Amino acid sequence: MAIILGDIQYGKAESRLVRIYRESRRHEIRDLNVTTALRGPFEQAYLVGDQSNVLPTDTQKNTAFAFAKSKGIETIERFGLDLARHFVHDIEPVEGARIEIEEYAWERAVVDGVEHDHTWLRKGQEVRTAAVTVDANGEYVIGGLKELVILKSTASEFFGFLTDEYTTLPETHDRVMATALDAKWRFTTTDVPWNEVYAGVKSIMVREFATLHSLALQQTLWHMGKAVLEEYPFIAEIRLKAPNKHHFDYDLGRFGIENNNEVFIAADRPYGLIEATITRDDAPDAGDAWRASAGLA
Amino acid sequence: MAIILGDIQYGKAESRLVRIYRESRRHEIRDLNVTTALRGPFEQAYLVGDQSNVLPTDTQKNTAFAFAKSKGIETIERFGLDLARHFVHDIEPVEGARIEIEEYAWERAVVDGVEHDHTWLRKGQEVRTAAVTVDANGEYVIGGLKELVILKSTASEFFGFLTDEYTTLPETHDRVMATALDAKWRFTTTDVPWNEVYAGVKSIMVREFATLHSLALQQTLWHMGKAVLEEYPFIAEIRLKAPNKHHFDYDLGRFGIENNNEVFIAADRPYGLIEATITRDDAPDAGDAWRASAGLA
Amino acid sequence: MAIILGDIQYGKAESRLVRIYRESRRHEIRDLNVTTALRGPFEQAYLVGDQSNVLPTDTQKNTAFAFAKSKGIETIERFGLDLARHFVHDIEPVEGARIEIEEYAWERAVVDGVEHDHTWLRKGQEVRTAAVTVDANGEYVIGGLKELVILKSTASEFFGFLTDEYTTLPETHDRVMATALDAKWRFTTTDVPWNEVYAGVKSIMVREFATLHSLALQQTLWHMGKAVLEEYPFIAEIRLKAPNKHHFDYDLGRFGIENNNEVFIAADRPYGLIEATITRDDAPDAGDAWRASAGLA
Amino acid sequence: MAIILGDIQYGKAESRLVRIYRESRRHEIRDLNVTTALRGPFEQAYLVGDQSNVLPTDTQKNTAFAFAKSKGIETIERFGLDLARHFVHDIEPVEGARIEIEEYAWERAVVDGVEHDHTWLRKGQEVRTAAVTVDANGEYVIGGLKELVILKSTASEFFGFLTDEYTTLPETHDRVMATALDAKWRFTTTDVPWNEVYAGVKSIMVREFATLHSLALQQTLWHMGKAVLEEYPFIAEIRLKAPNKHHFDYDLGRFGIENNNEVFIAADRPYGLIEATITRDDAPDAGDAWRASAGLA
Repeated sequence: MAIILGDIQYGKAESRLVRIYRESRRHEIRDLNVTTALRGPFEQAYLVGDQSNVLPTDTQKNTAFAFAKSKGIETIERFGLDLARHFVHDIEPVEGARIEIEEYAWERAVVDGVEHDHTWLRKGQEVRTAAVTVDANGEYVIGGLKELVILKSTASEFFGFLTDEYTTLPETHDRVMATALDAKWRFTTTDVPWNEVYAGVKSIMVREFATLHSLALQQTLWHMGKAVLEEYPFIAEIRLKAPNKHHFDYDLGRFGIENNNEVFIAADRPYGLIEATITRDDAPDAGDAWRASAGLA
Repeated sequence: MAIILGDIQYGKAESRLVRIYRESRRHEIRDLNVTTALRGPFEQAYLVGDQSNVLPTDTQKNTAFAFAKSKGIETIERFGLDLARHFVHDIEPVEGARIEIEEYAWERAVVDGVEHDHTWLRKGQEVRTAAVTVDANGEYVIGGLKELVILKSTASEFFGFLTDEYTTLPETHDRVMATALDAKWRFTTTDVPWNEVYAGVKSIMVREFATLHSLALQQTLWHMGKAVLEEYPFIAEIRLKAPNKHHFDYDLGRFGIENNNEVFIAADRPYGLIEATITRDDAPDAGDAWRASAGLA
Repeated sequence: MAIILGDIQYGKAESRLVRIYRESRRHEIRDLNVTTALRGPFEQAYLVGDQSNVLPTDTQKNTAFAFAKSKGIETIERFGLDLARHFVHDIEPVEGARIEIEEYAWERAVVDGVEHDHTWLRKGQEVRTAAVTVDANGEYVIGGLKELVILKSTASEFFGFLTDEYTTLPETHDRVMATALDAKWRFTTTDVPWNEVYAGVKSIMVREFATLHSLALQQTLWHMGKAVLEEYPFIAEIRLKAPNKHHFDYDLGRFGIENNNEVFIAADRPYGLIEATITRDDAPDAGDAWRASAGLA
Repeated sequence: MAIILGDIQYGKAESRLVRIYRESRRHEIRDLNVTTALRGPFEQAYLVGDQSNVLPTDTQKNTAFAFAKSKGIETIERFGLDLARHFVHDIEPVEGARIEIEEYAWERAVVDGVEHDHTWLRKGQEVRTAAVTVDANGEYVIGGLKELVILKSTASEFFGFLTDEYTTLPETHDRVMATALDAKWRFTTTDVPWNEVYAGVKSIMVREFATLHSLALQQTLWHMGKAVLEEYPFIAEIRLKAPNKHHFDYDLGRFGIENNNEVFIAADRPYGLIEATITRDDAPDAGDAWRASAGLA
């Protein structure tokens, strides 16, 4: 009945790395938030403070910035693989590496109708994400996006639900449906046209959200995920987390004003939270692909 | 040597109001954050708790939502004027009203290459703002934007500065310059094509930021503000607040890698903070146009 | 090779619930943030939009507020159990419930040296958390805290670490060590003096952080977790997540001023991130106790 | 009708400065967020990019960290004066300096009933603030606090208010009243026992909030401010900004449960916002004491 050390990992979180490509007059920009974590035989650091197997988190940070130049940042999925492979293959005691990256999109400033060579505005829409795991079991890439705020002003209903003594919600046949979507999809290969697929996944999810006449946010999520898997055979599963950002009809009848789904108050909290995994029934084992942390929420 | 009540105001802050126009199949959306504040003879509420002159903040909120339907939301400047005039002209004891509005932009979802009728993605870029004051002195409108994140990757220098014993900063002749711009501009009339001017002001500021070969963020701000005033005779002054979002060259020379302004670490804090008012020398009196609050930061 | 629905759950997140006990002149306050999620045969809601098995998230919210009165809020662990059991036992199709609660602490205002009966100041320190899961496999309670910001100004070293070509970090034998601790501990029973154990766990972790002469944050975490498990036989495991909030010596030597670990700049990002699970080797199976969501970070 | 430069200032914002005193075994900690801004003849930097009068913001930061050692941090008011005087008196072209400081409080960790010598927990309650201005007109110190979250569960009413066609709010004779107070008070001298007065002002405001049977948040603010001025003759005015953090009775009657002001839902937005300045009728001129910025909200 001993007390023992279970899962461990350590790394450097949230290095804000910006890369400018300036080979031509028309510069390019990549704006990342990079987190690295290592797994392996680091028990002695925990048990007795012996760091001889511990590559400092400061070194991990240095490596990310060095690779931004020496390897370049073609895509965050590729950059994550470069970093993860390096830590696992080149650093003796390291057995596994987890690289999580966020990418912030920029658009070129437009001056007199022309895109500018070296000035950009931050787009501010969804954040693109990648989570790469490399260990003895293989290489795993999870693509993703977060906080894609999307809203439809009609073609959404909610009725026929289960009721009990605490149910007061009226049924509705026309409502605003809005969410800030988080999605993560797992690839079964690392030979992927990453940018093209990212754009495709986003586009498909937007299409399904827009065009499905929705009877529930649950149904919308299923259609979004299914359509992504139908399009890309090398995506094994997709996980969706969607807050139901409530837009409540404001009661204007009290003032003799008709409100036909036109004026809403947008609530902050609480919000519905709908989650789903859509997967292939023959999806290969995920290994540690989804292990983001020591299990904390 | 009495203790007395000085400036007072009260209101309802941050009503999240969403308006859908659904007269045609092609819906329109307006997404606002509305703050109202009233000024006038409310001293008895403070001194003895007598509310007989106090229109509840809840009523102010109701009014905003009612007006969203009955008056509509053509522009936030116009909507602010509608609300401010109502409080001052229709509610007996009210002497002044201050309406502050933020607007969040949405873009239509694109499905199969076509803009969708009733689905949007939140743009997430800069927030458009308006601050309307109506009182015995007149009507004042301040347009604005906040958190326009803009970056240029070259054509920015910083040298020849004052030095003292605590100065360690090296001069630079090529650096990244980035900011998250807050700007507010005061109109001298309420007869303005608000949307057109908003787009114009933003466009001019982006152009100046991009095209000026900058010797300091201060210089860039001056050119941005001056160009706006040159274009619009009915704008009396513009106030700019620009954090200098530092992007530091990452020292890769330690690893034998050359870094020619290509790899940067983006810092959170501290940041430079540059402020300027650009004005006409014959600008009419601002009255209480800039009085946002009781003087708190 | 079909596309199928995997893990699902849905609920109402972040209901901000405040309960006042006013049976005597000396009121009591409980301030919670309550999230509920249900698991079970809700596939038809996803696949075809059929809600007949779906208890609305609005009803879940109503239930939490109703129970705040009818059951009371003795502790968040107990309140979570009350809610979870109700959903699983009383609502026909529900098979599992997950209740996550945050609690914000308040302290009584002191007036003329005496604690006030009905006025409090929010403490603002760490947030107490509970995550309760009830399903066919049993009842699971995870206690926790988050964002306990703790710092020691000496008795912390970091040396003897692994180095590679990207390592530039100097060794140190005296540094500031600071973190914002997240901790979660899993109970093996529901018969626990919850408040007493919460205070005990926090106190033990603070003690170990303070008194261990630390050779690494990893070592400190191990000692914190081990001491908790040694004290409480009914805690099976504890998971710790600790950002290393870097405090860098400010180089004052450039100004001829000696800085002997006295003046620091506190960095926001990046930060080290150290994680560990400390467990008993005979810990009972955790079931779905750690399943917070559909696998998103 | 020329376009000219109006108010300008520039500086370094939010330097996170931590100072440890370690002269004895019992260390002391001061944890600050320091912003400096300079005013003076910097027009050429704006107009033509000439920096010869511009002390870099980086130098301002260095100075703050150097002074943390050479001058020490007795109180933030004193530290702000040291910095402001230095910039104005020692740096030739500088005419005015504005120093804004936030201080975060820590409490000693308690180990086995004893306060620890070098370990602290961050308190997390209100933030103490100071804003110091030194210029040709004199020296101005504004003390303050922000985000003091305080709540009373009874002894608060709201009735007898003005009504119009949009008024639906019912009167109440017993409600929860809660706010997150921002307060700033202006001193008429720099010869003040700063820590003692800070504690006193906070204590007086808490006392008034608790003990006044309140007919409106407005009335509570007046009593808080008046009591502070009555106690401290060297405080000329105090400015208060108080969001009315609404706690709405949750309607449990729908479930046959009585809710006698016991169960509330705490709303995020919108919130009431009540502001007041309480002043002496013979308060000396404030100069630029309240000029925080170029007029942006």
